Amino acid sequence: MSFALQLFDLVGIFVFALSGGVLAVRQRLDLFGVLVLACATAVTGGIVRDVLIGAIPPASLADWRYLATAMFAGVVTFFRHGSIERMRNPVLMFDAAGLALYAVLGTGKALAFGLSPFAATLLGIITGIGGGIARDLLVARTPVVLQQTELYAVAALAGGGIVAIAHALGWPQAPAMAVGALLCFGLRFGAIRRGWRLPVARGTDSDS
Amino acid sequence: MSFALQLFDLVGIFVFALSGGVLAVRQRLDLFGVLVLACATAVTGGIVRDVLIGAIPPASLADWRYLATAMFAGVVTFFRHGSIERMRNPVLMFDAAGLALYAVLGTGKALAFGLSPFAATLLGIITGIGGGIARDLLVARTPVVLQQTELYAVAALAGGGIVAIAHALGWPQAPAMAVGALLCFGLRFGAIRRGWRLPVARGTDSDS
Amino acid sequence: MSFALQLFDLVGIFVFALSGGVLAVRQRLDLFGVLVLACATAVTGGIVRDVLIGAIPPASLADWRYLATAMFAGVVTFFRHGSIERMRNPVLMFDAAGLALYAVLGTGKALAFGLSPFAATLLGIITGIGGGIARDLLVARTPVVLQQTELYAVAALAGGGIVAIAHALGWPQAPAMAVGALLCFGLRFGAIRRGWRLPVARGTDSDS
Repeated sequence: MSFALQLFDLVGIFVFALSGGVLAVRQRLDLFGVLVLACATAVTGGIVRDVLIGAIPPASLADWRYLATAMFAGVVTFFRHGSIERMRNPVLMFDAAGLALYAVLGTGKALAFGLSPFAATLLGIITGIGGGIARDLLVARTPVVLQQTELYAVAALAGGGIVAIAHALGWPQAPAMAVGALLCFGLRFGAIRRGWRLPVARGTDSDS
Repeated sequence: MSFALQLFDLVGIFVFALSGGVLAVRQRLDLFGVLVLACATAVTGGIVRDVLIGAIPPASLADWRYLATAMFAGVVTFFRHGSIERMRNPVLMFDAAGLALYAVLGTGKALAFGLSPFAATLLGIITGIGGGIARDLLVARTPVVLQQTELYAVAALAGGGIVAIAHALGWPQAPAMAVGALLCFGLRFGAIRRGWRLPVARGTDSDS
Repeated sequence: MSFALQLFDLVGIFVFALSGGVLAVRQRLDLFGVLVLACATAVTGGIVRDVLIGAIPPASLADWRYLATAMFAGVVTFFRHGSIERMRNPVLMFDAAGLALYAVLGTGKALAFGLSPFAATLLGIITGIGGGIARDLLVARTPVVLQQTELYAVAALAGGGIVAIAHALGWPQAPAMAVGALLCFGLRFGAIRRGWRLPVARGTDSDS
């Protein structure tokens, strides 16, 4: 993996961990709870992917830099909670960049382990959204990525799908990854800044 | 696997996915949330089983037809939510059939991977009830299969147990699977239609 | 594994299962729900550890005595709920002993599978706290180990960390395990009896 990709990887870990740490502080968890939630958010998606494709032990456990980065983000959140809450929008932007990179890298790694384009796209989505799901489950609330107004997982699907289709057609991997990551980031940017969203089933207003 | 078993397998996927989709629509999730919950309900049990017995990658990721069936069920739920709610009892019957098949097939697959009858029965139960647990956890509620008035997991235990005992005694597999599936379905049918249930610990009325 | 260790292992399983069974009875689950919650609490941490280090099938599925012990604890809880609630403090003490043993044994097993000291310590923590997290998630509440006033996971970190550091320095394993387990138990004892706890992020009183 090139230096640029490794850097982006650690940036993705860092911002995902920030989102977990912020939620943990809001829920009044202690320092260890903040660290656990920061780490769980940052590495769960990748660990689930690695277990499902048979890459044992998972990369984020085998290489200490992943968890060290996530713990550093947790410590920062714990002691600088106020400053991070104020810059909420930059965090969302970093988070969108992390999602884009995770979805694309996750799909690529699953393809490299011999999975079909269909399965690889799913694993890319799992890599991207798994951390947020674990974060929300640990504080016992319905995962944000499953709720309306987000367009979160669809962006991961688009990003990973581009990589998988390019692989199936025999196109070069690097430009497909760049296009997929940009598309994923763009969809998420539109959802945050312009309120793009998916439809909700009609008639549920009166049902629920 | 014979054509009949494959067909039953996909029917099981379909009805489990329906139950996830219906819950997602009730919780007002968007289209993607409905698809995710439908897929999670349909395949989680099998994926956990495959990870625990070392069948990597899991069958429901390697074969695109499983998830395509689950997604189709999710789309149907999203656009035909009202019709499915009205035929709630048929869905419960399909769900009981799916549970019976999953418990029996899950136990059989674990035995084929060399696990003991005891462990294989447990994996059959996990295969049958795992999807429902994942579905309920994702919307942050206590899993229905753990609550009283259900007799859900006990039916899976009975079905898988028959297969495991037959295997331990060296009896033929096919009739044991048929008997186990019928027993599981029968227990579930009695729980739905006649209100069969398990006892609750005495004295908890005043404690809780 | 020596007879003493095996005995401690089963004692750990038993008391962890008790804590799951008590919670299940309080939530008014039926007999099967109590058994499931007892087993999930007792074996989840070890199963997750075994999946992550590639020890398939997991020890607690391959050896029937683990789950038989957990089920026995579940049955005891179901029929002797009142007596167990009254001896709450002894249960907490047994639970602290179980945590100490799990953290130390989990770290040792991960080291034996070739993981780095850093990763092995994490797996020791996961082994120790995983069961409690699964127990609380299954009844849809924020895991107790993540909440303040507990000092639970930190104790596991200390116990596993001692074993990992001793391994990295080439020191003998057995005394390191004894010291780690005693340190973990001591921290937990102090938290229960003397109210030791970790700091919470300042300023959250007004934020939340």
